[in-house]
Amino acid sequence: MTYCVGLQLSRGLVMMSDTRTNAGIDNISTFRKMHVWSRPGSSAIFLTTSGNVATTQAVVSILDERTKAHKARSPSILDQESMFQVARMVGETLREVISTYRPAGMEADGSFNATLIVGGQIGTGEPRLFMVYPEGNFIESSADTPFFQIGETKYGRPILVRAYDRDMGFEDAIKLLLVSFDSTIKANLSVDLPIDYQIYEAGSLVPGPSGRITRDDRYYQTISEVWGKALRAAFDSLPDFRLPERTLSRN
Amino acid sequence: MTYCVGLQLSRGLVMMSDTRTNAGIDNISTFRKMHVWSRPGSSAIFLTTSGNVATTQAVVSILDERTKAHKARSPSILDQESMFQVARMVGETLREVISTYRPAGMEADGSFNATLIVGGQIGTGEPRLFMVYPEGNFIESSADTPFFQIGETKYGRPILVRAYDRDMGFEDAIKLLLVSFDSTIKANLSVDLPIDYQIYEAGSLVPGPSGRITRDDRYYQTISEVWGKALRAAFDSLPDFRLPERTLSRN
Repeated sequence: MTYCVGLQLSRGLVMMSDTRTNAGIDNISTFRKMHVWSRPGSSAIFLTTSGNVATTQAVVSILDERTKAHKARSPSILDQESMFQVARMVGETLREVISTYRPAGMEADGSFNATLIVGGQIGTGEPRLFMVYPEGNFIESSADTPFFQIGETKYGRPILVRAYDRDMGFEDAIKLLLVSFDSTIKANLSVDLPIDYQIYEAGSLVPGPSGRITRDDRYYQTISEVWGKALRAAFDSLPDFRLPERTLSRN
Repeated sequence: MTYCVGLQLSRGLVMMSDTRTNAGIDNISTFRKMHVWSRPGSSAIFLTTSGNVATTQAVVSILDERTKAHKARSPSILDQESMFQVARMVGETLREVISTYRPAGMEADGSFNATLIVGGQIGTGEPRLFMVYPEGNFIESSADTPFFQIGETKYGRPILVRAYDRDMGFEDAIKLLLVSFDSTIKANLSVDLPIDYQIYEAGSLVPGPSGRITRDDRYYQTISEVWGKALRAAFDSLPDFRLPERTLSRN
């Protein structure tokens, strides 16, 4: 599995991804799932990936090569005129890679599938965030759905739904994502540290601060410890349930 | 889907189940998933169900009929000598029902499957809690794994893991379960109110307090509202994340 999140904020975008991949529980590896392309001053594009690693690495490599060797027939992701065109290009590349490796006649086989989150800003456009499906189609974030999760999305969702705020600062957003990742990592062995994060400031047209959080990161350890206590205190602060009648012999 | 939880406490057992069933998102119904058999003073047995409704209703009906019409060849669940024998009987009944309706040759077809939680106490034995699989085999709770969830288990798991305490009171346990159910209901349309709960006091050998919590229950509404705020306050109480260097132009 995997866990990646892309958040749309009024200040810009924040993306976070874990690094664990596995081919069975006895065969795990660490791969970076966060990728960046930028031409400072004109475009900044961010991609996180979940799903089959061969598929997602092929997609990233194809997109990457096109930014280095320009050809009229295979334009670079950095030459697109809008983030919509970027999402379309990423979706087409993904669909092509999957169809190449999918055995003929096994259309329903999902084992080469991947789902991606792509975000960024180009020229005078707004920062935009998309989730790209294995079929190559995609959806865009909105005021109603301002973030996307891919991979193991369930354990970390309740806190995102409750504490996300479009106007929060980047550092608060990283804190929120770390809580969400901590809940997921505690519950699913196929999601693990290190965690990569990437910030993008709206209008900057250059990648913002980024970093990798490892298992010995003091802040992560603190969050992981303190969150358990804070959650317990939040639970204790709720009003008590009272049984309709005192039918218990002792309590 | 479904969401049911069985908790083992030092004081006894608490079980909670939702009531939503669906055959597609456009075809939903309400069914009770909590079942009780008891011979006061000698046994009290509780069962919650997830999975195919035809399967779980058949299992419950078969077990139920045997408690009413005694026959030497089909003993009643209330005549078992231990909770281990009860779990075995429930597992065998479940496996038989599934194998009856599973089309020949489609061993891998999971559509008639169901998973159950069975708990209770018989005679001088301890209260025990089991999770029963579609294959008829089962596992028992322990100090390391003191509760079982079936159905949509993920959204509601983090709070259970963090706030469960073996020595908590029954009313605190109901409060904890309602928070876990609220997170699940908010995230998955196939889990919904009303919620049934059942308490069993260790040593009582009679079903404890039980009840149904509906959408207009004032306490549930309060928990649902206040939990969002409490979670938000817990999040705010965490130490702030600071980017390694101030590379943001504004924050």
